[in-house]
Amino acid sequence: MELWMVEQNTPGYSVNWKIKQTLYRETTRFQELEVLETEELGRVMVLDGNIQVTEVDEFIYHEMIAHVPLYTHPRPREVLIIGGGDGGTAREALKHEGVSIELVEIDPSVVEASKRYLPQMGGALDDPRVKVIIGDGIEYIEKCQKKYDVVIIDSSDPVGPAVGLFSEGFYRQVHRVLNEDGLLIAQTESPSFNRDLLAGVNQTLKDIFPLVRVCLTSIPCYLAGFWTFTVASKRYDPTGEIRRAGLDSGYRYYTPEVHQAAFVLPPFIKAILRE
Amino acid sequence: MELWMVEQNTPGYSVNWKIKQTLYRETTRFQELEVLETEELGRVMVLDGNIQVTEVDEFIYHEMIAHVPLYTHPRPREVLIIGGGDGGTAREALKHEGVSIELVEIDPSVVEASKRYLPQMGGALDDPRVKVIIGDGIEYIEKCQKKYDVVIIDSSDPVGPAVGLFSEGFYRQVHRVLNEDGLLIAQTESPSFNRDLLAGVNQTLKDIFPLVRVCLTSIPCYLAGFWTFTVASKRYDPTGEIRRAGLDSGYRYYTPEVHQAAFVLPPFIKAILRE
Repeated sequence: MELWMVEQNTPGYSVNWKIKQTLYRETTRFQELEVLETEELGRVMVLDGNIQVTEVDEFIYHEMIAHVPLYTHPRPREVLIIGGGDGGTAREALKHEGVSIELVEIDPSVVEASKRYLPQMGGALDDPRVKVIIGDGIEYIEKCQKKYDVVIIDSSDPVGPAVGLFSEGFYRQVHRVLNEDGLLIAQTESPSFNRDLLAGVNQTLKDIFPLVRVCLTSIPCYLAGFWTFTVASKRYDPTGEIRRAGLDSGYRYYTPEVHQAAFVLPPFIKAILRE
Repeated sequence: MELWMVEQNTPGYSVNWKIKQTLYRETTRFQELEVLETEELGRVMVLDGNIQVTEVDEFIYHEMIAHVPLYTHPRPREVLIIGGGDGGTAREALKHEGVSIELVEIDPSVVEASKRYLPQMGGALDDPRVKVIIGDGIEYIEKCQKKYDVVIIDSSDPVGPAVGLFSEGFYRQVHRVLNEDGLLIAQTESPSFNRDLLAGVNQTLKDIFPLVRVCLTSIPCYLAGFWTFTVASKRYDPTGEIRRAGLDSGYRYYTPEVHQAAFVLPPFIKAILRE
């Protein structure tokens, strides 16, 4: 018998992935969580029916969401990751000398499943420089009295527990906890299949931060054409001079040239952003 | 009743597109041809079960495959398009002043269906500057005594009638019919889901041409992460100075900056190309 997972991406299209076996399945307090072994993408973590990370292409997403802000900042020390319970973003952030990371994940099962089944990512969460906090990122940041150099919003799609991570109130709190030269990055979905979200987040962030920039990549497993990350910054411009000191030569996706090229937007995306 | 088309992309994944109606269907001498109205992508042309072009995102593919070589060449006049029977590439090439286009499409039904159901593309094939030749591109080029400035290999996937368009023998014939400062571009599939093809074409072209460069985009309807085009050139380097004279301001994807950024490759793609 062939086993296929059906991933409903929009009402107009869905994707079938051939499955070798189900490694783990749990109905957590927050969502349906599965770790599957697929034919095409290696092991994958699925939340509420949508693939979040895969062994074969997670490096693209994680190198971009971590290194774009961390090389834009000349001396990042205090880093806050909201979400990212799989550990991939923390793993990349740890490649920057001197960083200290807090990671706030709402669902402890994501952390445990990643450590057990996706250790290439989850392993980073055992590093002593990473403090894992199980809790609601929105509540955490509202009460937070600490200041950060970089906040990374590594959320799942804007459904279920992640909805509030795309809201104006949340972004204002992130602005409050950033140092006066701090910056944030957020994953902001596909410009082809979720353009209203991208447009809305962009306008909201422009009301709060002096500098807002969108960069592009493509995440094969998301099957959505381009994928966007949005940077909102108090001082440093990610499209300007970036730090090259401490550059790791082992990256599979990120280079300073890839960083710069990612911010070159075609007119149809500028139109979505009203730029 | 809901109608869904299932597109088998690899043995490990397939995509379901919700269909509003079937506009046209024909078993031609060469392939199964369908024009469908989809929920997500507008009208689409499907060959042997794979979406080739869609109304909503065809501009990305066609602007890249036409303008990357045509702005690399300082004075393109004679242009040969192999495949491209939908007319989208010809429409973009016509935006370059002074060009004269020959287009060799093997399947007359593709031309007729595009003119009738996708006139935004097919309409270009009625332009007096475009000579449409119905025939086998491989045979045509073997017998061809004319010389061209730019050859655009706008093929379908390397199955069925397009297999020979990815072969060394064919590329040697293209080299022969190019002027001494001519160049070719070919669509060369996804680096994630068809990396062996990309690697093979790259090595083959490097044996024939002094300059071979790969550029990236992402075509949403192909649902394959990045998409590659490979340029092989006798003189002009598409990563060097490009022509800005005659630049059309109405493009939705192409700009000189997008052109340059598209050639910045992440290490994982350089590894596929052994660069």
